[in-house]
Amino acid sequence: MTADRTRAVLTLNAGSSSLKVGLFPMQGDAALATGLADRIGPDGTLTLKDATGAAIPALAGDLSNHEAALATILASLAARFPDLDLAAVGHRVVHGGPDHAAPARVTPALLEELARYAPFAPLHQPHNLSGIRAAMAAFPGVPQVACFDTAFHRGHPWVNDTYALPRRFHDKGVRRYGFHGLSYDYIAGELARISPGLAAGRVVVAHLGNGASICGMMGGRSIASTMGFSPLDGLAMGTRPGQIDPGVLLYLMDQEGMSAGQISDLLYRQSGLLGLSGLSNDMRRLEAAGTDAAAEAIAYFVARLQRELGSMAAALGGIDALVFTGGIGENSAPIRARVCEGMGWMGIAADAACNAAHARMISPEGAAVAVLVMPTNEELVIARAARALV
Amino acid sequence: MTADRTRAVLTLNAGSSSLKVGLFPMQGDAALATGLADRIGPDGTLTLKDATGAAIPALAGDLSNHEAALATILASLAARFPDLDLAAVGHRVVHGGPDHAAPARVTPALLEELARYAPFAPLHQPHNLSGIRAAMAAFPGVPQVACFDTAFHRGHPWVNDTYALPRRFHDKGVRRYGFHGLSYDYIAGELARISPGLAAGRVVVAHLGNGASICGMMGGRSIASTMGFSPLDGLAMGTRPGQIDPGVLLYLMDQEGMSAGQISDLLYRQSGLLGLSGLSNDMRRLEAAGTDAAAEAIAYFVARLQRELGSMAAALGGIDALVFTGGIGENSAPIRARVCEGMGWMGIAADAACNAAHARMISPEGAAVAVLVMPTNEELVIARAARALV
Repeated sequence: MTADRTRAVLTLNAGSSSLKVGLFPMQGDAALATGLADRIGPDGTLTLKDATGAAIPALAGDLSNHEAALATILASLAARFPDLDLAAVGHRVVHGGPDHAAPARVTPALLEELARYAPFAPLHQPHNLSGIRAAMAAFPGVPQVACFDTAFHRGHPWVNDTYALPRRFHDKGVRRYGFHGLSYDYIAGELARISPGLAAGRVVVAHLGNGASICGMMGGRSIASTMGFSPLDGLAMGTRPGQIDPGVLLYLMDQEGMSAGQISDLLYRQSGLLGLSGLSNDMRRLEAAGTDAAAEAIAYFVARLQRELGSMAAALGGIDALVFTGGIGENSAPIRARVCEGMGWMGIAADAACNAAHARMISPEGAAVAVLVMPTNEELVIARAARALV
Repeated sequence: MTADRTRAVLTLNAGSSSLKVGLFPMQGDAALATGLADRIGPDGTLTLKDATGAAIPALAGDLSNHEAALATILASLAARFPDLDLAAVGHRVVHGGPDHAAPARVTPALLEELARYAPFAPLHQPHNLSGIRAAMAAFPGVPQVACFDTAFHRGHPWVNDTYALPRRFHDKGVRRYGFHGLSYDYIAGELARISPGLAAGRVVVAHLGNGASICGMMGGRSIASTMGFSPLDGLAMGTRPGQIDPGVLLYLMDQEGMSAGQISDLLYRQSGLLGLSGLSNDMRRLEAAGTDAAAEAIAYFVARLQRELGSMAAALGGIDALVFTGGIGENSAPIRARVCEGMGWMGIAADAACNAAHARMISPEGAAVAVLVMPTNEELVIARAARALV
């Protein structure tokens, strides 16, 4: 018996302690397989699913670091798809610098360029680049495509691209890059498909996950985002503070004698919902906890989100639609309800029943602002880019 | 001939390179004399005026530092008011810590307490305290009253008082203090006098000077402010950046090897309008300059102000009135016009003729949001507090 060769593209999305993979056919949106290596390290776990959602047996293997996890994943996929014929590998890359406004085929020159942006994203960029190198070694000759989280935001108006520092800092790359661009790209495309009228207008997308940001779009193009130079700013997140006074950092340096590494650890890993609740970075756990501190952490998350929605509306001159996406945005009806409550002054409201049902459209009939819930799909954006470039 | 004793209170407002004084009678709002020692240092200047605005001769004297400038001012006032009988001296003090919600009579214990807040405001608090000590030495036995820039903001809702850091930081004083409280206190009082209906509602006051911030009030009480732990955050200012990604500071530490002192100098003295324009921290000079960089600096100032207005409206659940005050807010019709342009989505608009005339009410008849221009008077707030406490 001879099987047809399974022609496909592989997507890789390396987080700080996770590796998400997707295997996509050359046409269509449904993945052949998806996988997640989580809590990479001594307690790492690996789950793989096929197109029906059924589990694909994960081979026993090393999950102690990203390279080992990738090898284990690839071996598991090879066992399930023995005739796999990879057309390309697409990679999520956190930082594409000031110029890349679209995905790019990986070349030695590009790798060298992307390494120069590591100082802008020291906790993520090196992971992303070692993922590309590992895939190049595993699949010699297969085209590799880099998809940048910053790309969707290139072309911001100057006032949304700079900080009020001496100009030499902008020249050397201290800019408001914005992140979560693959998610925003996906939502922009989906919204244009399901509601071209809304997509043509002023749309605010709230990507609410363990990392969280807001993007303001006009006609499907990013105008501004709450994340800027780094993924620390803007909304409160699982372990990151969002907006914070620069004077706090000067205080931590000057009065507490903290080093850059210590402050970085505080702001990337110990703050946000985890820091305020003293309990967890996971919104589901906080919603279930019932402690005062958990309730205050949620209240802070909601309040900062409302503030940033007002700010983003100002950047757009008002808004026509608000889209919730990401893990919290897609799944937490209580958070969506609380965010919309009190935003009635700018025409935002949620219908309780539609919201509880996670309907696509949760704003009441005839509301001034359309409020939607849309699942995001960063992997599909990577897969499409990889297919388009080969 | 015997003169009546001139019973009065003296107000002292020490900035980083200036010292503003006021001499107020025991009743009424009009100052007997006002004075400004500016550019304290080798090129210092001193101007004094009486109640009619006529110059009071300034005695030749040392203006090389704050203490010397104070002595020169006091000598000049004593020459003009030989029978001066000081009932109290009121001092602007930048930081009152988390608990002082009202002015306080200076005692040794208070001075000790206020010295403990110097790490929160290292560039300003020591100046303020040495001003108090100098006045105590000059007027032994005369009551000294400290008026705190933070006091008006005490009582913010918790979400507007904290950052999303581990809770121990809030406990040790890393909070959103807010500043410009004397100015906001004055405006709140004046608004209650001229329009009790507006003052009872949701009011946003934009204090726009070389330092600049916004305060959101409900019923005359501060709910939130764009300045938080330090006077660096929020709006772009003459030489300060306003909102900036904490990742930029990590980058400056880690990649540029800058010390806390160097970053502090960058953010307090070289950024904002000066940094973006490469020309000046003075809005009047930028408006007259006509260079691209000056125009971009102004555009950034306006855009950030609009963003923060949207954010503050979200904190208040919409707004009933917007008040412009401070040097730029009171005097720059073009800035007010540009800020209001594009904020129509939230009911803000300016009537061109009223705005050009610096009328008290510049919003068009029947507008959803009342837009006002009101001169501030921090000295009078200090004088009233000093009178009230003696």
